[in-house]
Amino acid sequence: MLNAEIIAIGSEMLTPFRVDTNSLWLTEQLNAIGVEVRLKTIVGDDEGRLEEAIGDALRRSEIVISTGGLGPTEDDVTRQVFARVLKRRLVLHHPTLEKIRARFAKRGIPMPAINERQAMMLEGSMLLKNDHGTAPGMLIEDGGRTAILLPGPPREMKPMYSTLVEPVLRRTVGEMFILRLKLSIFGLSESRVDELAAPIYTRYTNPTTTILVKNGEIELHLTAQAKSESEAKSLLDQLGGKLEEALGDVVYSRKNESLEKVVGDNLRRRGYTVATAESCTGGLLAGRLTEVPGSSHYFNEGVITYSNEAKMARLGVPRELIEAHGAVSEEVAVAMARGIRERTKATFGVGITGIAGPGGGTEAKPVGLVWIGLADDEGAQAIRMVFPGDRHFIRVLAVNTALDMLRRRIF
Amino acid sequence: MLNAEIIAIGSEMLTPFRVDTNSLWLTEQLNAIGVEVRLKTIVGDDEGRLEEAIGDALRRSEIVISTGGLGPTEDDVTRQVFARVLKRRLVLHHPTLEKIRARFAKRGIPMPAINERQAMMLEGSMLLKNDHGTAPGMLIEDGGRTAILLPGPPREMKPMYSTLVEPVLRRTVGEMFILRLKLSIFGLSESRVDELAAPIYTRYTNPTTTILVKNGEIELHLTAQAKSESEAKSLLDQLGGKLEEALGDVVYSRKNESLEKVVGDNLRRRGYTVATAESCTGGLLAGRLTEVPGSSHYFNEGVITYSNEAKMARLGVPRELIEAHGAVSEEVAVAMARGIRERTKATFGVGITGIAGPGGGTEAKPVGLVWIGLADDEGAQAIRMVFPGDRHFIRVLAVNTALDMLRRRIF
Repeated sequence: MLNAEIIAIGSEMLTPFRVDTNSLWLTEQLNAIGVEVRLKTIVGDDEGRLEEAIGDALRRSEIVISTGGLGPTEDDVTRQVFARVLKRRLVLHHPTLEKIRARFAKRGIPMPAINERQAMMLEGSMLLKNDHGTAPGMLIEDGGRTAILLPGPPREMKPMYSTLVEPVLRRTVGEMFILRLKLSIFGLSESRVDELAAPIYTRYTNPTTTILVKNGEIELHLTAQAKSESEAKSLLDQLGGKLEEALGDVVYSRKNESLEKVVGDNLRRRGYTVATAESCTGGLLAGRLTEVPGSSHYFNEGVITYSNEAKMARLGVPRELIEAHGAVSEEVAVAMARGIRERTKATFGVGITGIAGPGGGTEAKPVGLVWIGLADDEGAQAIRMVFPGDRHFIRVLAVNTALDMLRRRIF
Repeated sequence: MLNAEIIAIGSEMLTPFRVDTNSLWLTEQLNAIGVEVRLKTIVGDDEGRLEEAIGDALRRSEIVISTGGLGPTEDDVTRQVFARVLKRRLVLHHPTLEKIRARFAKRGIPMPAINERQAMMLEGSMLLKNDHGTAPGMLIEDGGRTAILLPGPPREMKPMYSTLVEPVLRRTVGEMFILRLKLSIFGLSESRVDELAAPIYTRYTNPTTTILVKNGEIELHLTAQAKSESEAKSLLDQLGGKLEEALGDVVYSRKNESLEKVVGDNLRRRGYTVATAESCTGGLLAGRLTEVPGSSHYFNEGVITYSNEAKMARLGVPRELIEAHGAVSEEVAVAMARGIRERTKATFGVGITGIAGPGGGTEAKPVGLVWIGLADDEGAQAIRMVFPGDRHFIRVLAVNTALDMLRRRIF
């Protein structure tokens, strides 16, 4: 497997405010054609350190990709540092200069002299034209190594890589197909998933398997590598099938879909509709359901009934029920789900009531306690959860759990 | 100013799925005591590359901090690589071994032999005890350089740094106070903010000023450095005051508060309430308002009226109005705001209707068109916006704009 290093250039990524995210996208692209990323460096506009970083990278790795530092100002030193390390002259590329001049002319302003720097190219480099900005990139093949200079802004960098760099790297790497499969899982802990999955996936070195966790959702990422696409696909299908069999219905997608997308597709296919009545989640469940384009096919309306008065007036929750059991109770969650279903004539009604904190918890009803009710034409039930974490996390977990309840109800 | 490098160790950060975020927190802590971060490296568990990265860093920088690679497995090579680079032996630290053994005993299981590695310390190092995990960290002062080995999990790393490392570094650095001020801005473009602010902040080298943009919100970050806290504060107050004067009421916070927090505090102080009627934002405005603890003081209820029928039934929007002007129109936004205000008796009613896309746009009403209505006891108006970006971004910008309208209405 060929290996690559990525150098992100820009002082803003050495502050507490910005992280280099270009390299995540580039890593994904490189992995997909069989190139492994072995090291990443983040460096500011200090010429000495940049020179050292570039020199080290070119000595160690077959492919070196830099992002950033191709702008017109004094701080943008990427070109001259690569020129120094590779011992190549910088020469003015007249067609590029004319193109930059024309961009300025179009806006009715003369080109500032400093922009001329952006037309300087390393001798013997391949020019990577920039359709979304002024600075072109460069690709240099030098003694078996490939150096690639890309601009920093993602909207310039990504199309330049995809259209101009990837075809060159594919030729270098040779035919190699890397395919991925992601199993999205909800309803089991990470350790329980691993307990079920590890005895299976550890028997395989190809595909490789990685577990990731986010907001209570678990993802199993499988990556297979083969000389042909069909061989890679069959490797994935084999292991993926075994894992799905072992995990059962906690796997909600093998196509990188969100929970709300899976729920929405199922509702739409069946011609069902859903309506929501939210207290502690304050509209976030409706917000997630309507994040999906075309959600108006199955979502018509919802209410946020934060106060007891709103629960009574908008959902017909009886005052006596709230007084007897409290607003955060099985009875009220069920009444909310029934209430919104009846008032909207939806197939499903969902009611959520809980204590998101940080205040308002008691020993019997701690912060994190959430009741989620679901009503349909067969009746209504509620489940009780106690979620960990802060206010934000509790609300997100409550929404995910409600979406998963819906998913399991619709076949 | 002393300078530092951060080395993040772990193969998972060389995949497309994980980014090193420990370094952002560490950078903030280091900056706050007057240490600048000059370079960051992300490296896997390849001993050769790690050795080179550590060697280079110790040669270039006064402080080198590593995170990760202190676990019990074969992959966890940080200790032995630092030992090799610093030419120090690894010695078994018996009290640490006993502590690890005791942790296992408490859970009723014998300590696996591999965990003994975690009790190996570099000769002459200061032990950094780990109150939240098994692996202790280490701090080594060597020829004017300080090497610091921290564990990777943030919940172990952060308290270890704060309680044990920072006091040592403070002594090295000397008394230096770094204070920050963040001006949060909504309602102007980044270039317009810079046009107004740059003539002022470029006259100062202390504080330094950085502009950042997120979801249409602009942030001006000011960082001042001085020998005393009061001097740093006065530097910030001086420049901060001038910037606020130049920018006017687009500055919504100088205390790192969210827009919904500022709106919520203003509502609460005045004893006002707000109710929401959302179409294209699908509950996200209510979700943001209720993200603030204690929002039940001013938020009682909201509705999501996605369909025309719901707009008529829940808000009393006249059918003729929708037929004459369309659901996405000034008239309907105003009627939604009025409708929710009247039905809930809230001080303010907000109505949002728009086309979030990707489908549903026309030439006259393109994707991104959003009408936001606001009703109070003096009447109701709506503003028209056309937001750029995808469905998600359009919805977020619509919510931010609605929150800012509310902010400007409440004094």
